[in-house]
Amino acid sequence: MTTRIREIDLHLEVPFTISRHTRTEKRVVLVELERDGRIARGEASPDPYFGESSESVRADLESALELLPDDPLALQELRLRLDERFPHGGAASCALDTLAHDRAAQSLGVPLYRMLGLDARRAPPTSFTIGLAEPEVMAERAAAAAERGFDILKVKLGAANDVALVRKIRERYRGRMTVDPNAAWDLRRAVRTIDSIVQYGIEFVEQPLPPQDLDGLAELHERSRLPIVVDESVVRATDVPKVAGIVNGINVKLQKCGGIAPALELIAAAHAHGLKVMLGCRAAESSVAIAAAAHIAPLVDWADLDGNLLVTDDPFVAVEVRQGRFSYSERTGLGAIPR
Amino acid sequence: MTTRIREIDLHLEVPFTISRHTRTEKRVVLVELERDGRIARGEASPDPYFGESSESVRADLESALELLPDDPLALQELRLRLDERFPHGGAASCALDTLAHDRAAQSLGVPLYRMLGLDARRAPPTSFTIGLAEPEVMAERAAAAAERGFDILKVKLGAANDVALVRKIRERYRGRMTVDPNAAWDLRRAVRTIDSIVQYGIEFVEQPLPPQDLDGLAELHERSRLPIVVDESVVRATDVPKVAGIVNGINVKLQKCGGIAPALELIAAAHAHGLKVMLGCRAAESSVAIAAAAHIAPLVDWADLDGNLLVTDDPFVAVEVRQGRFSYSERTGLGAIPR
Repeated sequence: MTTRIREIDLHLEVPFTISRHTRTEKRVVLVELERDGRIARGEASPDPYFGESSESVRADLESALELLPDDPLALQELRLRLDERFPHGGAASCALDTLAHDRAAQSLGVPLYRMLGLDARRAPPTSFTIGLAEPEVMAERAAAAAERGFDILKVKLGAANDVALVRKIRERYRGRMTVDPNAAWDLRRAVRTIDSIVQYGIEFVEQPLPPQDLDGLAELHERSRLPIVVDESVVRATDVPKVAGIVNGINVKLQKCGGIAPALELIAAAHAHGLKVMLGCRAAESSVAIAAAAHIAPLVDWADLDGNLLVTDDPFVAVEVRQGRFSYSERTGLGAIPR
Repeated sequence: MTTRIREIDLHLEVPFTISRHTRTEKRVVLVELERDGRIARGEASPDPYFGESSESVRADLESALELLPDDPLALQELRLRLDERFPHGGAASCALDTLAHDRAAQSLGVPLYRMLGLDARRAPPTSFTIGLAEPEVMAERAAAAAERGFDILKVKLGAANDVALVRKIRERYRGRMTVDPNAAWDLRRAVRTIDSIVQYGIEFVEQPLPPQDLDGLAELHERSRLPIVVDESVVRATDVPKVAGIVNGINVKLQKCGGIAPALELIAAAHAHGLKVMLGCRAAESSVAIAAAAHIAPLVDWADLDGNLLVTDDPFVAVEVRQGRFSYSERTGLGAIPR
């Protein structure tokens, strides 16, 4: 049994801008475990917002590799160890949890979604994300995405001209659309902007307010004419009760909560509260990280798993996207192979 | 592929009395699916409290057999169909869900708890239930259970002399003990009885008040000197939020919630709220039904899975109990075989 940890630099096809920053590349950390010629993989895509860097997650992975049980089916054992080591989830936990799920399904000889009993046909189409740019550029990118078969787009907002951006995109794109200002609004601006964009047929607004502003979310819930989905406000399943009743859905990200097992707990907790669930990703992820989420996508209402589609040098092929829909291979585990 | 539905009469070793009624036997309904020499099984143990009889669950099973997908791993598909047909869960749903999980794990060639990634060593010991009887008789049975290796007992209360019962049992039994008046108390009696029995070292009180009396539970939560676990108050995961904050734990029963999949959702929802979880059973169940719960017992804090141990004519052997602890076989699926 050998293990390898290595960094991979992913380059974005176009600079990716959200309300907080612009990215042109991203360093992710891959962990691989090889035994009897089979390789299981997991990926950490660090987010500075949560205090993570490629250096910190690499160090976390190196010290946490010993937590992997010998038994490929010992997922609960690993989960308890990861929860103890990484109580707030995060990218390093996600990488090890993903690797373990890949290995477990490989050892059972089935694709991961089959091990979990899921119905591939129920996975929603993935949205394609349009980063912040000049209105004409965003509209052009939206039209191009629709051309490629994506029938739901996630539009980044949080610029000075949010309403104009949405209006401009609507001139070129008529499909399903969600918006995401990444916590850039305050309550007043949220209500005003939502009132102005509701006419353009928006499915929901993601994380309009700062993550900790639950009072603001509660008031916005009363006043918003569009459903609200929160991302940064919810990390683990224990965060769900505090937003229940004041939002309409949550964005579950494996890199945020710490892997597939905590994501399944989040989804169950959300459903117990009647909340809708979106499965999201970080700006740049390889197909290893995206596959981990795609395998549980049949459980959710919306998928926003395009982190591998936005990069030019993804080293892997796993769950492919055709006309915006996931195409699961018959390979076992995650189904990830070098491109 | 052939399917069979048949009734099995289970006879209790001693008449089993709770605050609502006395039982000497119970008719359960077994469903079996045989294909290529492999038999998958599920069991419905009807409860009149939820409007179920052996006739009604047999009829439900006959009409719902068609919901079973051909694909042995299509658990999500079955779950959505069962949730539509049996939105309140129940015994017929449980039987089909159990059969499907047995079949899935058999098809993957592993015991069910292994398919679910669970660690058998984490399963708590099962408690043994002492039904209502004369104080001396209950004390004698408690002593005999301890002699057999059970180190946690569940004592049924709800008689006129609850405190005397507990005191008498404590004269003969010094191990861990919980009490269950099956909703027989009102708030005043609950507070008074709990105040009187707290000196005898009780781990928690199960369902002290009528299931719908959430105001009473909230007030009892303020005044009780013992933790409270609810049973009938919670059926499905969507019931968890309404008791969160006013109880300490929930009793999850597969026959009540409708099977393994809804039980996993309940457990996740409970944990998201910081609630403890007990995994329970009905008064008489064969080893098929008990095994379904035992395979997920590693996820919970307390197991009360003695429904097969209380009967004299259990037709199956599956997860055996030795010295009060589960002993999982290496057989695939539930591991149930004719005795």
